[in-house]
Amino acid sequence: MNVRRTRYYCPVEFAVEVIGGKWAVVVLAHLKDGEHRYGELRRRMPEVSEKVLTTRLRELEDADLVERTSDGGTPPAVTYRLTPEAAELTPALRVLYDWGRRRAEHQGIPIEPVC
Amino acid sequence: MNVRRTRYYCPVEFAVEVIGGKWAVVVLAHLKDGEHRYGELRRRMPEVSEKVLTTRLRELEDADLVERTSDGGTPPAVTYRLTPEAAELTPALRVLYDWGRRRAEHQGIPIEPVC
Repeated sequence: MNVRRTRYYCPVEFAVEVIGGKWAVVVLAHLKDGEHRYGELRRRMPEVSEKVLTTRLRELEDADLVERTSDGGTPPAVTYRLTPEAAELTPALRVLYDWGRRRAEHQGIPIEPVC
Repeated sequence: MNVRRTRYYCPVEFAVEVIGGKWAVVVLAHLKDGEHRYGELRRRMPEVSEKVLTTRLRELEDADLVERTSDGGTPPAVTYRLTPEAAELTPALRVLYDWGRRRAEHQGIPIEPVC
């Protein structure tokens, strides 16, 4: 998100800056499985504060990686989905997912998704 | 690198913590193309201080993602390569590389690898 430089030495560095840090990657990983309501994302990421999640979502929107829609109701139902550009990252997010799952299993670290 | 928690809610979050931040990802991306001498990594990452690069390399070693070998000479020739576990991330690093290159091209941001 933090793309301030005017020149880069490696496309991967640029990509990582555009995408942002850990929680941005986790948001993209959840959204790769389909659109989510805001409340669903909150539940799936219980370690993240509301403020941090909201900020990351806005940054992802600004970077054209996430689309936000609201039904305009009271209260509004707000839904997030990947943009087509972010959807191109799906194969990388799948690799990270499988890799993380295997490594956690080997190390005996529990991963308990919130459904 | 920063794996302090004993429980995670998503494998992607765990994977991102194990791998570390931006410069760790860039190191892995360079090493996916083959082993590098320390000096080669330095040249390819001119924006990173020696101290940060050394720290990231040590963290990657500690996480079993990078193997360091030294020929024991004076001065020693120190070489870094991916471990088999890190090599499993190569498809994700390729996706990031291609995606970053396309996005930089669309945005007119120059990426000039140091060879």
